[in-house]
Amino acid sequence: MGNTISIFDTTLRDGTQGEGISLSAEDKVKIAQRLDLLGVHYIEGGNPGSNSKDIEFFQRVKGLKLNAKLTAFGSTRRKNSLAEQDSSLLRIVESGVPAATLVGKSWDFHVHTALQTTLEENLSMIYDSFAFLKRQGVEAIFDAEHFFDGYKHNPDYALAVLRKAQDAGADWIVLCDTNGGTLPHEIHAIVSRMASELSAPIGIHTHNDCELAVANTLAAVQAGARQVQGTINGYGERCGNANLCSIIPTLQLKMDHRCISDDQLQSLTKTARYISEIANVHMPVAQPYVGNAAFAHKGGIHVSAIMKDSKTYEHIQPELVGNKQRILVSELAGQSNIISKAQELGLDINANNDKTKRIMEKIKDLEHQGYQFEGADASLELLLREAFGEMKEIFKLESLKMLVEKTNGSGMNAEAIVKVNVDGQTIYMAAEGNGPVNALNNALRKALEQFYPSINDFHLSDYKVRVIDEKDATAAKVRVLMESTDFKSTWNTVGVSSNVIEASWEALVDSIRYALLTKSKIDSHDEPREQFGLLNH
Amino acid sequence: MGNTISIFDTTLRDGTQGEGISLSAEDKVKIAQRLDLLGVHYIEGGNPGSNSKDIEFFQRVKGLKLNAKLTAFGSTRRKNSLAEQDSSLLRIVESGVPAATLVGKSWDFHVHTALQTTLEENLSMIYDSFAFLKRQGVEAIFDAEHFFDGYKHNPDYALAVLRKAQDAGADWIVLCDTNGGTLPHEIHAIVSRMASELSAPIGIHTHNDCELAVANTLAAVQAGARQVQGTINGYGERCGNANLCSIIPTLQLKMDHRCISDDQLQSLTKTARYISEIANVHMPVAQPYVGNAAFAHKGGIHVSAIMKDSKTYEHIQPELVGNKQRILVSELAGQSNIISKAQELGLDINANNDKTKRIMEKIKDLEHQGYQFEGADASLELLLREAFGEMKEIFKLESLKMLVEKTNGSGMNAEAIVKVNVDGQTIYMAAEGNGPVNALNNALRKALEQFYPSINDFHLSDYKVRVIDEKDATAAKVRVLMESTDFKSTWNTVGVSSNVIEASWEALVDSIRYALLTKSKIDSHDEPREQFGLLNH
Repeated sequence: MGNTISIFDTTLRDGTQGEGISLSAEDKVKIAQRLDLLGVHYIEGGNPGSNSKDIEFFQRVKGLKLNAKLTAFGSTRRKNSLAEQDSSLLRIVESGVPAATLVGKSWDFHVHTALQTTLEENLSMIYDSFAFLKRQGVEAIFDAEHFFDGYKHNPDYALAVLRKAQDAGADWIVLCDTNGGTLPHEIHAIVSRMASELSAPIGIHTHNDCELAVANTLAAVQAGARQVQGTINGYGERCGNANLCSIIPTLQLKMDHRCISDDQLQSLTKTARYISEIANVHMPVAQPYVGNAAFAHKGGIHVSAIMKDSKTYEHIQPELVGNKQRILVSELAGQSNIISKAQELGLDINANNDKTKRIMEKIKDLEHQGYQFEGADASLELLLREAFGEMKEIFKLESLKMLVEKTNGSGMNAEAIVKVNVDGQTIYMAAEGNGPVNALNNALRKALEQFYPSINDFHLSDYKVRVIDEKDATAAKVRVLMESTDFKSTWNTVGVSSNVIEASWEALVDSIRYALLTKSKIDSHDEPREQFGLLNH
Repeated sequence: MGNTISIFDTTLRDGTQGEGISLSAEDKVKIAQRLDLLGVHYIEGGNPGSNSKDIEFFQRVKGLKLNAKLTAFGSTRRKNSLAEQDSSLLRIVESGVPAATLVGKSWDFHVHTALQTTLEENLSMIYDSFAFLKRQGVEAIFDAEHFFDGYKHNPDYALAVLRKAQDAGADWIVLCDTNGGTLPHEIHAIVSRMASELSAPIGIHTHNDCELAVANTLAAVQAGARQVQGTINGYGERCGNANLCSIIPTLQLKMDHRCISDDQLQSLTKTARYISEIANVHMPVAQPYVGNAAFAHKGGIHVSAIMKDSKTYEHIQPELVGNKQRILVSELAGQSNIISKAQELGLDINANNDKTKRIMEKIKDLEHQGYQFEGADASLELLLREAFGEMKEIFKLESLKMLVEKTNGSGMNAEAIVKVNVDGQTIYMAAEGNGPVNALNNALRKALEQFYPSINDFHLSDYKVRVIDEKDATAAKVRVLMESTDFKSTWNTVGVSSNVIEASWEALVDSIRYALLTKSKIDSHDEPREQFGLLNH
């Protein structure tokens, strides 16, 4: 085995216990394929005995040629019954998976309180279940639930439980910190001791209730664990499971272990973002390694040092995990941030020419009005490209009307009417929506889609409004930040006005312009129609 | 010192380096007051030499009686100059703070690359700067930037840097993992060695680039560090700083250290949520200890075990940090908050009567729809008083219309028309505004002012909008939080709808109702006209 660590992904099983996470069978198939490309060794698909969604998933996934081992999840047999007649165990075998994980109790308190059976019967449940799976030729993984709490309360019994699974032929003994309350030094001590007591290879399964799931996993690996169970983006019940997006790069780049290939590691950021889109969960910008801000620099001193040498403020090269450096523009930084941003875009800029000075003036003026570009990369990019004559107009607004109505007891209606001009042609379009910004978005997209069908390939994914000065909140200026996504990447735009509709309109127009012009990498002098082929994927 | 750990909060300084975090001087004052209530020992307010916002903050905060030590941030003197003439050091002294943190280089690579000076001059910069601060009678904290990277590359120089600060009289030597790339076992080994080499007390400052900031902080404390630097919710540059909301409870509940009082610990969840509202940053539901899902149970087996005994699936009692258990079946948790709130209002409420159960049901239902009363005390108070029949209607909406228009090149116009009924009298009123919410506010106030002249004594002071679910941002529900003020006090209200105008309307109406009815402390059976005297101050 050496320094290879086996990665066991449970995004599709434990990950779906996270609040707000609900995956269809189709979603699960898509995620399984992505996980396979990432190179994880095991993909836990779900519990084939528990619900129709998981049954459908196991059916459909049979047709895929996965390199990873698909595993099914279940628990040890019911008390006072036979493994051969346990419907849950039988369903696992019927699903045809090469490997299965069974969870069993290792904390005496749980045997008494939750299972309400004897310590002896729990040992038999474990032995019988693993012996059964092994007779069926299935690779068998034991998830020892609450192992660390159990070990602290009754070490002899907790160890007896593991030995029972090992004796029955379990291929892996996985120690679970189910409640997420154990500290790294405790994990290290207990795993070390288990590694010396057992001959079967050990795995680790941690939860993030103390914000220590990653550290606990690493501590277990240092103590001898050779399988890591976790989820993409750390999805999971309560505070989540151990986050594989942080564990894999740390093991591989900093601890001399091998998990996946270098190329696969470079797909980590893309994989994390793709799965967050499928799961419809907003990805925190600050997420380590793969977040949008993971290598973003804001402080002026930091930025000027980064320009001299990236490793002054970066612990790894972002490209190793498929992420990239970003320079944020804000009041805390200065001109050097803008210049490096422009250079990143391939624009010919330097501190001394007039064009640069004009751009700096314009950005300073906009910031003074309340714009904030640090959270609105796309709007900044449009500004910079415009200054370099690299942009063309995709449409011209002639007029816009919005009507919002409410009568006593009813909901509010919103209707928008836009009149726009595209290449000399005037389009007059109306739409309604469940709110004014939605109605505007609907009307504008309807007006533009005949010219730019690719407008349907992306959508708005987040929307924030903030009052800038607070003299009188409803008369004050507001800043709207919008996030948009095409499932591959996200971009952010900004609008400022004393009118929330107008600020939203600005951010919306920037979002659409950015997607249609900049993301397509089309020369700005092309006709918009020529972009369809590239954007319609 | 024993087992006491000093908590150094840098939310207002390093926290504002986080992407999307921008705090006004007013925001900073509010946050400082909350941090003080939480009981942190140091509050780093910012850099008094860097920008007008921080200068205003240090001015305003002087008037507050904080228990915590307010600290200012700066760096060691410029190269080849005198500390006594360094404008940044002079500003710190002028700001009148009792303590200051100076950052200095401890990695030889940075001295050469970023500072572009000699190793010797860097040592002098450190010595001179601390000697200067100590002569001014300021408690002086040394943040040794990139200490761990520096120590790995050139341990002798890194140690010499610390010794220099110590010799100059620095009160704390804080070891910083600025790039966030160090692992817990490395932190433990290096801090242990420093603790044996130095006589000054040691602090730790970590970043979360490997998702290890909390673990690294705990490892440092185990190795002898006695000050912890971090931020609320882990805000900070790139992946953030060490999250005090996870560190404080773990140190105090699991590691036998003392940071804040038990009562203060119970205010942790409220503090974390309040600060996330002020910063207008969405708080991840899965955030350890203080997140909405931190003690939420979804899995059926988990829930049935939880019903038998909470500690089956909870690592601590959620109440210890002011959070609560959430399960899908009839929960009694959370009720105590509401009951104590009602008691605070002098309402006759107890856990067993039917009225209480109906209120709880209603609040749960509203929370399910996306309302959040954490940041909207006034709306909650209105709900409770209403349930006790203590409220009267100040007006009835008959209809509302809003028209927003824009033509090419012009600004956007907004007009609102409201038809309301007050005491049987119908008023039909129109107003314009520089935005739709402003127009609505103007029209409604104009309609009501003949009945309630005191409506002119207060105004809206802050306005925030957040998307709740993110399937399609402009079609999703939004939550509007409004803050109002009469210059003596402020109150907060909430509205939820898929229509930003409707959500704003709800929050606006609550704000006006609260001011006219509740704040005046008038018996609800009085005629509204009798309130004028009380509200016209």
